[in-house]
Amino acid sequence: MNERSFVLKGTICHSQSPDTLSIMDNAYVVCENGISAGVFSVLPERFQNLPLKDMGEKLITPGLVDLHLHAPQYCYRGTAMDLELLEWLNTITFPQEAKYKDPDYAQKAYSIFAQDLKMSATTRACIFGTLHVDATVLLMDLLEETGLKTMVGKVNMDRNGSPDLQEESSQASAADTRKWLSQVIGRYQNTQPILTPRFIPSCSDDLMRRLSEIQKEYQLPIQSHLSENFSEIAWVQELCPSSRFYGDAYSQFGLFGGEDCPTIMAHCVHSTDEEIALMKERGVYIAHCPQSNTDIASGIAPVRRYLDEGLHIGLGSDIAGGFSLSIFRAMADAIQVSKLRWRLLDDSLKPVTLEEAFYMATLGGGSFFGKVGSFEKGYEFDALVLDDSNLRHPQQLTARERLERFVYLSDARNITEKYISGNIITSNTLQGI
Amino acid sequence: MNERSFVLKGTICHSQSPDTLSIMDNAYVVCENGISAGVFSVLPERFQNLPLKDMGEKLITPGLVDLHLHAPQYCYRGTAMDLELLEWLNTITFPQEAKYKDPDYAQKAYSIFAQDLKMSATTRACIFGTLHVDATVLLMDLLEETGLKTMVGKVNMDRNGSPDLQEESSQASAADTRKWLSQVIGRYQNTQPILTPRFIPSCSDDLMRRLSEIQKEYQLPIQSHLSENFSEIAWVQELCPSSRFYGDAYSQFGLFGGEDCPTIMAHCVHSTDEEIALMKERGVYIAHCPQSNTDIASGIAPVRRYLDEGLHIGLGSDIAGGFSLSIFRAMADAIQVSKLRWRLLDDSLKPVTLEEAFYMATLGGGSFFGKVGSFEKGYEFDALVLDDSNLRHPQQLTARERLERFVYLSDARNITEKYISGNIITSNTLQGI
Repeated sequence: MNERSFVLKGTICHSQSPDTLSIMDNAYVVCENGISAGVFSVLPERFQNLPLKDMGEKLITPGLVDLHLHAPQYCYRGTAMDLELLEWLNTITFPQEAKYKDPDYAQKAYSIFAQDLKMSATTRACIFGTLHVDATVLLMDLLEETGLKTMVGKVNMDRNGSPDLQEESSQASAADTRKWLSQVIGRYQNTQPILTPRFIPSCSDDLMRRLSEIQKEYQLPIQSHLSENFSEIAWVQELCPSSRFYGDAYSQFGLFGGEDCPTIMAHCVHSTDEEIALMKERGVYIAHCPQSNTDIASGIAPVRRYLDEGLHIGLGSDIAGGFSLSIFRAMADAIQVSKLRWRLLDDSLKPVTLEEAFYMATLGGGSFFGKVGSFEKGYEFDALVLDDSNLRHPQQLTARERLERFVYLSDARNITEKYISGNIITSNTLQGI
Repeated sequence: MNERSFVLKGTICHSQSPDTLSIMDNAYVVCENGISAGVFSVLPERFQNLPLKDMGEKLITPGLVDLHLHAPQYCYRGTAMDLELLEWLNTITFPQEAKYKDPDYAQKAYSIFAQDLKMSATTRACIFGTLHVDATVLLMDLLEETGLKTMVGKVNMDRNGSPDLQEESSQASAADTRKWLSQVIGRYQNTQPILTPRFIPSCSDDLMRRLSEIQKEYQLPIQSHLSENFSEIAWVQELCPSSRFYGDAYSQFGLFGGEDCPTIMAHCVHSTDEEIALMKERGVYIAHCPQSNTDIASGIAPVRRYLDEGLHIGLGSDIAGGFSLSIFRAMADAIQVSKLRWRLLDDSLKPVTLEEAFYMATLGGGSFFGKVGSFEKGYEFDALVLDDSNLRHPQQLTARERLERFVYLSDARNITEKYISGNIITSNTLQGI
């Protein structure tokens, strides 16, 4: 028995499958050495010697997983909200990211980001840095201190950047990647590197070949962007005339899923049938980022199809295409945009349900990290304790109604405690984002 | 000089037209007897004897106006988010509204609503009650105490309700309306009655005729719903075969705008050219409710067209089709859905800008209340003092960037002070919604 062995009592909600959400009032979830021993309506005798924290009526859920966000963009979230992807990259994002060459600026900006992410509902995240080695190591150092479990990537981009934000050559990009990896591998408990070609327009064929070698050598997961915006897709086709579809431009270099190359692709708003089939075959994870896809007017991804066809899918805040760090908000956004898609585009794809949004935010994205995102026996014990008592109401509410309302109405103030692998990260704080 | 005469100094933002937003750092806005004397970069000598409150870097904006919300629905906002309009009315809304027959329940529910609305950014609102006279008077009593300026309607509905929520006859509905008016007219400083036929499917022709008489007799403004959802529109056509379009079903009874009948119609998602032309001719106000139109999958209103054609338009939270009381959130939602409309439906209608969203939330809706929604000389002094210091950033931000960010990222905690007609309503509170 140790500090990472205890029992929480409360209203326990967790996904068992994409459309099955278990909700139990006055139930117990047991954490043994940081691993869930399961949820019980009556606490089994063998756990009765563990410390019990009675959370009363509070909701207890798995931690939320953010499969896609850009740490350097956090500082300008919610500004310049009137541009589409490529214009936004060139006029806002590249000049902003160039600032991270300055370690003082990076320290200031990333400290704010790491503190706010710590206070949010997110327990695990896959994060883009910038192309700068030093700033990315700094970001990883700061994230390590938070106790959050993250995968972080130094960005690769050797073409189509800006004068201040582009690597000199594919060789230089690969060399910096190796330098970065040599500094961060083995350095952390909670923080892992993930290979991060920005997107096909930013990465020459030669760079992609070099990254593929690095991926194999270090057995790294990878993250990138896919089929987000029409202009971007057309550009990829121009840049890679031999590719059959956007995803194929990654796949040609062996950087598109498969057992040895766990892959997250953000967006997949306009994926073709062939691309979807290949994502399914290779187990590629889709990071669905509904807020970003709205803000930069990319469109609405066919999430119903991805869920029904059994693809891996989780949610991403995509800071700063999206402005909100909250994955509860991403759940609400996912439901909302799916309704508009159903109404405006294709009424054969039914809106996303609360159960499905909750699944994507927990188990759907969590499985990229292993046994994460559920309280089933054997899962890592990532948990949130949620206090909805400030959301007053005169009538009785079921636990499911409370959870649904929480998704739409809560903010960081409503998070009472946050655990990752059984370690407490934040407790009873009233500070928010 | 009195308590309602003072000067605020800060970063002052207000609309001068639908697409002109004045933003001045270190500026002064003068309130004389509850009326704005204008915004100045240097304080004129004649105002230098007034008490000056220096708000430092805080943003100062006009109060926000919510043109459409249902007070009895506030308690279940954010639940049952998987239904379309007509199903949602029948299975959720009507049974919930029926509870307001019980004065104890109404007291509990409306107290929460009034307190939360007081703490929000809203200074003026047009509010639906239920069909119950006593509960509606109670709601008005509670709102009066908050200091908010509101128009509140006892709902009329003599057909197509539920067993527990329908008036017995058109005579009974009209009689109850007169009873309600006799109780509330002259009773309040801040709270005014507004005639509130629920929507055409709820009101028989005979009831509409009676309401028209009452409207003329008491010179009341009216509020209702228009062209929200396809099934609703088809139903109106069935119920009123002689109407040329939905709005015509109100217009036939003289309840659709014109100088003597100030009218708010919520939604207008699917208005026809003829309907739009009539709204313009009659000066009908559109309450654009983007969140509600998303949540109950109604669609996306062509706001760009309404703005370009010079129709009156403001924003509505439409609690509980919408879940958020925040009109800052409604601004963000209006921009967001306009981008999706542009991308998915019609790229001839450009997305709504920050300037336009701000206009709709202030001056656009405010003008329904008279000279409200701006700091131009002669306007009623409704103001918010906004503290964005918890939204930390490492870089310089312009005042416009701060305002834009505020729209997307703020919550009720960021509201430092709220004034209505020069009276302070809330100050330095940290409690939120």
